[in-house]
Amino acid sequence: MAASRTLRIGLIPGDGIGREVIPAGRRILEALPSSLGLKFSFVDLEAGFDTFKQTGVALPDRTVETLKKECDGALFGAVSSPVTATKGYSSPIVALRKKLDLFANVRPVKSVAPSAAYPDPIDLVTVRENTEDLYVKEERSYDTPDGPVAEAIKRISHKASTRIATIAGEIAARRARVRQGLGDTSKQAMVTVTHKSNVLPQTDGLFRSASFAALAAQRFQDAGVKVEEQIIDSMLYKLVLQPAYYDVIVAPNLYGDLLSDTAAALVSSLGLVPSANVGDGIVIGEPCHGSAPDIAGKGISNPIATLRSVALMLDFLDLEEAASKIYAAVDANLADGKLLTPDMGGKAKTDEVVEDVIRRL
Amino acid sequence: MAASRTLRIGLIPGDGIGREVIPAGRRILEALPSSLGLKFSFVDLEAGFDTFKQTGVALPDRTVETLKKECDGALFGAVSSPVTATKGYSSPIVALRKKLDLFANVRPVKSVAPSAAYPDPIDLVTVRENTEDLYVKEERSYDTPDGPVAEAIKRISHKASTRIATIAGEIAARRARVRQGLGDTSKQAMVTVTHKSNVLPQTDGLFRSASFAALAAQRFQDAGVKVEEQIIDSMLYKLVLQPAYYDVIVAPNLYGDLLSDTAAALVSSLGLVPSANVGDGIVIGEPCHGSAPDIAGKGISNPIATLRSVALMLDFLDLEEAASKIYAAVDANLADGKLLTPDMGGKAKTDEVVEDVIRRL
Ligand SMILES: CC(C)[C@H](C(=O)O)[C@@H](O)C(=O)O
Ligand SMILES: CC(C)[C@H](C(=O)O)[C@@H](O)C(=O)O
Repeated sequence: MAASRTLRIGLIPGDGIGREVIPAGRRILEALPSSLGLKFSFVDLEAGFDTFKQTGVALPDRTVETLKKECDGALFGAVSSPVTATKGYSSPIVALRKKLDLFANVRPVKSVAPSAAYPDPIDLVTVRENTEDLYVKEERSYDTPDGPVAEAIKRISHKASTRIATIAGEIAARRARVRQGLGDTSKQAMVTVTHKSNVLPQTDGLFRSASFAALAAQRFQDAGVKVEEQIIDSMLYKLVLQPAYYDVIVAPNLYGDLLSDTAAALVSSLGLVPSANVGDGIVIGEPCHGSAPDIAGKGISNPIATLRSVALMLDFLDLEEAASKIYAAVDANLADGKLLTPDMGGKAKTDEVVEDVIRRL
Repeated sequence: MAASRTLRIGLIPGDGIGREVIPAGRRILEALPSSLGLKFSFVDLEAGFDTFKQTGVALPDRTVETLKKECDGALFGAVSSPVTATKGYSSPIVALRKKLDLFANVRPVKSVAPSAAYPDPIDLVTVRENTEDLYVKEERSYDTPDGPVAEAIKRISHKASTRIATIAGEIAARRARVRQGLGDTSKQAMVTVTHKSNVLPQTDGLFRSASFAALAAQRFQDAGVKVEEQIIDSMLYKLVLQPAYYDVIVAPNLYGDLLSDTAAALVSSLGLVPSANVGDGIVIGEPCHGSAPDIAGKGISNPIATLRSVALMLDFLDLEEAASKIYAAVDANLADGKLLTPDMGGKAKTDEVVEDVIRRL
């Protein structure tokens, strides 16, 4: 039996359906077979627009401090972002990524079954730099004779680009190992570096050169990781037309945001797509969907993205065995297709899906 | 008979298949029925990577000056952009847009026939701001103890945002008028304003507020133009899942670049998608595809994007009758489906497609 290990997990439900899916994430962790030798303790933490409305602060210091000092992992639900700027409010997840230096946002997208549009299986991961680019949020405004003008800084560093490309290479190597273990020879390990260095030779050019340098490391070559590049506009074009082609895509923050939502559309639902915000010493799982105010409170939100986010978090905590149990149970639920939430064309409640997945663990 | 009008058109083939499709654009203009009372004179102009290699300049002054002083319209083919920064080279089309203040980049995307993935007809236009955003290309680099860092400026002005939203409103109103003329009640006139003001409240917030203010004009209300907004990441998501929903989408420069390529993928080929770069006193038609070095010189490039770009140019020169003749002839060629280039699954040569479209004028 594996040595017993106790992990402390922060739970940040946030707003809307975040309050329904995060408890599902807790349940799956508690339901993991004891043979894995894992124990979990949980701490409830606040963040989000509701928190902001109640306290004037969207991301309380206690949340940040507890995550930093106590937690190995965390689950973040969803937050409502009002489109109109609301004085004093800015997205707590963007702030959290920066405050905890969660430098990588990893978003795997996998098709459930072949479709008319996509007969070949889609199985790709976007690896998004998570701390800089336009997300440094350094803006200024000024008046001119022609009226107001505003500027924002897009910042790209060699350090963050190297770090994100390195994790992309590691993910590609790991995925290749997993495929090899399954005797799956459908795909070669590959990282596609995305940028717009034809228009932005300094910033995106730096992302590009740092990525190529990092991915040239001997260990990636030994693992057979091929490296190629694609300009972001034609990347989106080809992603829609040939998603099965891709394995791992690495991108600066904003392009990564756009690529991962586009990739999610190709498998028809954000309700399926997990993410992990990866830092040194902490990993925060986060479903890619929003707070979905239209269905919040009805108990019908899709828990799959959260359950997969739990697995992804475990992956990055080097608990691959536990992770693969959850992935397999989720895949079995989807393949069976009998207990699905309404966004997937089914009639099941959130809880029924969770129970079905737990039965399959 | 309409009063005779003579238009001077600049022809800038650029690189690769640009040299094959721009002559096709000239041919269709020359083939327009004389009853329209239009005459064209042409001037050959240079720009592109080949020009750069020969002369050290990608966009010669003569090209810019001739367009400014002599031309009503122009056709721009495609240019090769080396991905790696090449000393002294930067994209001549980006430079041209700025030097001639071609403030709007208009890209209609229309499906040829219903598909399994998209049973409802796709018929949308992205209206992309064409002069600012990250395309101001103001970058700087500096060293830090952690290594090199580069920054780029994203600039958004009230003036350019107002201007682009206004033209988007005009396009929506015009499209509604055309649909009405055809007795087509499938769609209400609508402009979707795209931005990321949840992360960039000043820059994208300015784009948002200026757009809403411009689109609130009485004339747009009178024309029944509905206005809504969508954050760029969920915009891409919904665009892929429900493209038939959209009518006119207005976006800052970079998002517009990405949206229009994604929309092109939904109708399966960039070879079909035209664009117009619209300024005061000049319109430059430009197919959305690239220079396609892999097929250049074989005479099999798809001329449809260029023929439609010619029509779009005529539209913005207020020659709607001539424009609609070309649109209709192109649609008839596609509906017939017998003379298509290889990218569309056919076997026809560029010239054969052009001749077929001319026969249908
Ligand atoms: C809510 C928003 C600030 C966020 C982002 O842009 O990163 C979201 O779109 C995401 O992808 O996690
Ligand atoms: C070639 C490139 C600079 C250009 C752009 O980014 O505008 C192209 O992608 C386009 O859309 O016309």
